[in-house]
Order: sequence, then structure tokens, then C-alpha cells
Amino acid sequence: MSDNKKIHFSTKRSWSHDLPISFLMQQGVENPDVLSLAAGLVDQNSLPVEITKKSFEHLFSNQQSAKEALQYGTTAGSLPLRSLLLSHLETLEQKSAEELGITEDNIIVTTGSQQYLSLLGEVLLDPEDICLVAAPTYFVFLGVLQGLGARIISVETDESGMRMDSLEATLAMLESQGQLNRVKLIYLVSDYENPSGLSLSQDRRQQVIQIAQNWSKQQRILILEDLAYRELCYDGPVVPSIKSFDSTGETVILTQTFSKSFSPGLRVGFGVAPVEVCAAIQDKKGNDDFGSTNMSQHILATALHQNWYYDHVDNLRAVYREKRDCMLQAADRHFSKLPGVHWVHPNGGLYVWMTLPETIETGFSSPLFQTAIHEEKVMYVPGELCYAIDQGLSGTEQSPVQKNHMRLTFGVQNLEGIQEGMKRLANAVKSFI
Amino acid sequence: MSDNKKIHFSTKRSWSHDLPISFLMQQGVENPDVLSLAAGLVDQNSLPVEITKKSFEHLFSNQQSAKEALQYGTTAGSLPLRSLLLSHLETLEQKSAEELGITEDNIIVTTGSQQYLSLLGEVLLDPEDICLVAAPTYFVFLGVLQGLGARIISVETDESGMRMDSLEATLAMLESQGQLNRVKLIYLVSDYENPSGLSLSQDRRQQVIQIAQNWSKQQRILILEDLAYRELCYDGPVVPSIKSFDSTGETVILTQTFSKSFSPGLRVGFGVAPVEVCAAIQDKKGNDDFGSTNMSQHILATALHQNWYYDHVDNLRAVYREKRDCMLQAADRHFSKLPGVHWVHPNGGLYVWMTLPETIETGFSSPLFQTAIHEEKVMYVPGELCYAIDQGLSGTEQSPVQKNHMRLTFGVQNLEGIQEGMKRLANAVKSFI
Repeated sequence: MSDNKKIHFSTKRSWSHDLPISFLMQQGVENPDVLSLAAGLVDQNSLPVEITKKSFEHLFSNQQSAKEALQYGTTAGSLPLRSLLLSHLETLEQKSAEELGITEDNIIVTTGSQQYLSLLGEVLLDPEDICLVAAPTYFVFLGVLQGLGARIISVETDESGMRMDSLEATLAMLESQGQLNRVKLIYLVSDYENPSGLSLSQDRRQQVIQIAQNWSKQQRILILEDLAYRELCYDGPVVPSIKSFDSTGETVILTQTFSKSFSPGLRVGFGVAPVEVCAAIQDKKGNDDFGSTNMSQHILATALHQNWYYDHVDNLRAVYREKRDCMLQAADRHFSKLPGVHWVHPNGGLYVWMTLPETIETGFSSPLFQTAIHEEKVMYVPGELCYAIDQGLSGTEQSPVQKNHMRLTFGVQNLEGIQEGMKRLANAVKSFI
Repeated sequence: MSDNKKIHFSTKRSWSHDLPISFLMQQGVENPDVLSLAAGLVDQNSLPVEITKKSFEHLFSNQQSAKEALQYGTTAGSLPLRSLLLSHLETLEQKSAEELGITEDNIIVTTGSQQYLSLLGEVLLDPEDICLVAAPTYFVFLGVLQGLGARIISVETDESGMRMDSLEATLAMLESQGQLNRVKLIYLVSDYENPSGLSLSQDRRQQVIQIAQNWSKQQRILILEDLAYRELCYDGPVVPSIKSFDSTGETVILTQTFSKSFSPGLRVGFGVAPVEVCAAIQDKKGNDDFGSTNMSQHILATALHQNWYYDHVDNLRAVYREKRDCMLQAADRHFSKLPGVHWVHPNGGLYVWMTLPETIETGFSSPLFQTAIHEEKVMYVPGELCYAIDQGLSGTEQSPVQKNHMRLTFGVQNLEGIQEGMKRLANAVKSFI
């Protein structure tokens, strides 16, 4: 049968096979009785039902504004929303748009910040181009980079985030290998990193710009700052973004989302970049979808304009602070007596990063993961997914993949679920200590 | 200043520069007093304000369903929506899903059908791979193909759509040039093609499957059937899709959208494909945005489930039929006495394709376009944008770019606007005859 001839997919299709996120979701589906401390969903109870309703009703109380929401928008996103995003950034940064050196023209609205990350990768990275990331870092972005055929090189971190001495050492090594001209991007989740919960210290936020600029010897090295969690701050200092220190506005690209702070179902994120980067992203997005859902943008713009959004975020912080405390207390209760087990106390975000003794691996095929999922009925994200390995470097040149961590989230479970999940997880871990 | 070093964009970024759609939109913005017969917006008055309101209220009358719409969905799209899409296709095809050989697993929901077209291109086409298209065809898809570095080869059309003898001749020529193994896709807008308004005849719908299968000598040649306009049928026969004739389900990929028949602001489209193609698209979409707006999907699912959608489409057909008739009458009134001017009577869709004498060019830089936009204050889409040129073929081997056509749409203007626009356009054309 001629119609059974094989389909020849594109070369890059093979680079995005077997994504860990798909495996994780599959595990969730196949094991519905498992209590998930892995799923990246947000808290179900606090989803903004009433605010969304009020915003929708406001929008649809007027034929004109209803029809604008139902008609095509523009590729870059609704201009009124982009104006509100500018004010939103002014509030978050405590600086005027002028001081920040940005206008609406620097902003593009996307389907979650995920689409912004992906579009930026598409317009910037050729196969074998290099992106530097923290070890560990957001594993879904590692998938994006892998799907583009990029080289991902990990840089060591400590409790203040990516180490600047390690970053410089990595850049020096790449220069000595004749690869500095392939370094396009430094990716940083500067507030409450997924998965580690750590934030980049203020002095490093200033240093990293200087480093990127100093090492831009042949081409510009851009910093991609992912602030998905910035509004989910529970205690500790609120630090200005890396972007806010970028005095010329030419080095840092910032992306944020309303998925964590409002509703992931609306899928509204955005990014701020120099205009030539915006033009490139807009051209690619023009081909990809010529604009994200206009309706969502109008609902969110209404919630922002009416200040309902800000009331919601205040409440949400209290909700997540309680859930974070609950997870930390459960960690104390169940894990503190286990030798070699420790964890990060995050000041914000959705994750607790737990370290086990080096002998206990946590990966999908590890005995611990299997015991957790099949016997104790609890699931976590194996920490090793959050480390990149670069095939072009020797073992001694890169930050090694660490196999003894777990990413735990307090996002989706309620307080009882968190307590029960942590108890089950401790039982699983105990059988290996 | 080291931070002023040049940004090195990816190679493919240069392939999506200067898209005509951006130029057209820019013209619209810069000339706000211009009456547009170009803009691809849908009719503003008939946008489904009341149905969307009812659907939203229905969804938000229940905390559980409201929260589902506000939470993350899945990459492939809401399962209840995909079930409704299956029934929707059964209705449109007058065949059961079993007869069509498809289940929910063959369906992926996207941000308009545009994202489906783009994702399919990404997973299928390497630079220099070949896609065969009708001359003329949907120019935004030409932009997608160009952005992927693909070769686009035009096949001659007549009043029954793409000519099957020309298709075979093109395949034979490519085989003789050793390029048959690079042919991955045949793209067909089978109902009321944008821009020509023509439909592919039923016998050709069957033949094209046979041709694709016969020429799948080294790898499978897939047919991408874009049925964006299928529900906007005003008169003439309703012909089953190419997909409905694909007995093994291995040759045709079908995509549709609710942007034309319901609301582009919701940005909901979908595609139907063999499962291995779905897996590839899902992996890419997982990296790109891990799911289109969930809220839009839930609103649309409610409108479909309550049958409100179908009532709307019935009304919409009457609205557009009247507008089409209005444009055709205005064409008769203002153009019928102009020698060498003729146009297609479309049985559906949103476009009237008008041909001028060969000596009158219609492109952006042509005297006609400049006169139309600056003096008569009316805008159309130059037909030449809808023709591809392949650099690898000699002039004698390909269907030539025709420069004397205009795509006129009756979508966005009301009846007065259509009449006035056609009058202005005729004035512009007259000055060149």
C-alpha cells in the first residue's frame, strides 16, 4: 500500500521526542489514586471565579467592548492591555516606564510566558548555539532548548542563585574552545526559581548584566529573565528585577505570566525586549498564530484596570504562604530525623526543593520513584530533569547532573493533601535510608 | 559600549522578514480613512455576543466548571471539546466517526487553525523540503512555509480548483529532477479558497488522494486540507471533504477553525491527523505553549453542546450571503462595462477574486494600489501575494505569478461600506483602462 509509506518528519521533530512533562502527565493519568506533589497546576480553590465573572460581565455589558473581545486582535496583543502591563511593571519595579526605558512597543502578549520563551528561542537560536542556565533550572525550558537543537550549558548555583564566578569561568572556557561566538543567551529565573525556590541576590542581578556586556565580544549576549513567580512572594525581601538594572535596555529580556498569579486557563503571558527582538518575535508569532486569544486579554485587562487583579494577588499570597508553611512543617515532622535529608525554605513561588543522601537516586526508573508511585501513591518531580547535560563538554568542565533531589510543589494540593503527601513520601524515602 | 554589540538572530529569523500581512496592517493603521476591502476581519455586527454571554454564564453558574476553565488544560486540548468536535465533524461529513476512522485522539486543539498549519509545518518540513500549493492560495500559509525555509511550488488551477493533470506533471518533473523525496505536502483550501473563492470539485477530491498515494514512492506525501471556510456556504452544492474519501486515514490531514463561523477572538481551531502526526504536533506544542487558552475552549464547548453554535451559523450564512450578493451586484454595477475585468462568483467564504486586464498590475508599488489607497481611499489585497515563486525551478516549469488580480472581501464592511468601496475601487481602476 503506497499510503503506508513512512512519514518523513523534520529533523527537529526528533529533538522534541519523549519530553519528561509528557511522561509525568501520563503517570498522573495512569495512576489516578496517586497524590501528586509533582503537578504544576495552581491552587484550585483560590482560582478567581468571581473576579473573572465580574470582568466578563463588565466587558459584555457593552456591545462595543464585547465585540472587540470577540473580533481578531493584533499579533503583538491588545494595546490597552499592553498599556496596563506597562503600569503593572511600573508598580512592580517602583520605577516609571521612562526610567525603565520601555513603552508599549517593547511588550508582546503571548499564550502564557511559555510561548514567549519558545518564540525567543526560535528567533535567536540556531542548532549548536549556546544558552547558559542555572543548575538546576526550569525543566520545560530545557525541553524548548533541546527542541531547537541548542547547546545547554549548566552553571553552578548556591543559595544566592547562579554563581557569578562560575558563570565567568564557563564563559572563559567557551572562549578558549572558540565557542564564545555561539553564546546567545543566559537564562535566569531570578525570583523563587522553579525548582529550587532560590532567588538571585541583588548584587548578582547587577553583576550579571556587567558580565553579559563584558563577554559580548563578537555578538550580544542577552539575558532572558523569567519572572513567572515574582508576584508570589510570601516573606523575605522583594528584590528589583535584573531588567530594572539594565540601564541601556539592550541586554535584558524579561518575561512574566498571569498563569500563577491569576489564572492559567486564560493563558496570558508577556515579554519585554528591545524593539528589534520584538520585531523578530512578532514576525514569528505572525506565522504561528497571528495573536493569542483576544477574549482572555480583554478579561485580564478589565481585571487589571478595575484593580480587582491586585486584590486577588493579595489574597493569593496568604493562601500560598499557608500552604508553603504547611509543607515546611510537614517536612520538619517527617523528614528532619532522616540523616542527609535537607530542603530549601523558599520565600515565594510554589516549590520546595529537597535533597536526599547522594546514594538515593530519585529518577523515573529509580526504586524510590517506583516505590513512591506504586506503593505509597505519591508523586514528585525527579530533580535530575532540571539539570542539562552538554555533549560537547567533558565531565570535568560542567556542573554535574545531581540525581538525589526532588521538586515538591504545594501549589495544587490542599493542606490535608500536602500533609498526607509528605507523610507518604517520607515513608517511601525511609525504606531506602 | 559592549552592550551595543549586534544581536545575532537565528538563520530562520531572516526567512520571516517583511511579511505582506504586516505591510497590509500597517497601511490600515497609517490610513485610517481608507475603506478596507482587504482586512481579513469577520463581520462585526454578527459577532456572537449573546451566545458567548449565555455560554459563559452557563459555565460560571457552577464553581466546578468555572474552575476547570480557569485551571491549566492539556496540550492536546480539552477532552470534552474534542468529543464535541468529533460529533461536529460527523454532522458536517454526514458520516460516523467510525466511518471516518477517527477518535478524539486524532484531534488537537490549537490557537486558530493558523497554529495548526504552523505546527504541522514545523514537524514535517526541513529547509528545502517541498510543499505543493494551488496558484493562487492563502498567502499567510505561504509566509509560514517561507519562514520554515521550505520550497513552495505552485500548481495551476481552473474553475474546479487545483488541476490534477498539472499536479501530476509537477510531481513528474520533480521526480525527473531527483526531488520527489523532498515532496512532503500538498496544501489545499478545498472549500471557497482564500483568495479565489473556488472549491475543489468532488472528483478531484478523490483523485488527489490517489495521486498523493501513487507518488508516495519513497516517503509519504501528505495532503493538508484547510477547511477554514467550509461552514460559510451560501449556495451551490456542499461537497464532502477530501478527508472523508481517505479510506485508510493515512493520507489527509484536515484543519478547521471557529474564527470565521463563530469568533476569531476566542482563537479556537483544530486539526485531525494520523496519531503519529498528532504525537509530533503535541510534542512541539508542548514546548511552544503547552495548550491553547482553556477558557475559550470551554466557552466554545458550551456553545456547541447547547446547539447555540449551530443556530448562530445558520444566521451567519444569511448575513454573509447578503453581503456577498451586495458585492457581486456592486461589481456588476461598477465593473461590468470595463473591458477585460471579470470576477468569480463564490458559493461561500469571504472573498471575491477580481481579474483586471493583464496590463494593469495590482501590487503594493503599482500605480493602481497607490491611487486606490491615497486618492480613492480604498484598499484591497494584491493578488500577486497569493502566488509562490520557487527559485529552484526555471520560469517555464512553474505556474507564473499573476500580477493583475485583486482579492476583495465582503467580510468586514457593512452593505454601505461594500457598495462605497466597490465604487471607489472602480474609479481607481477606470483611470488605468
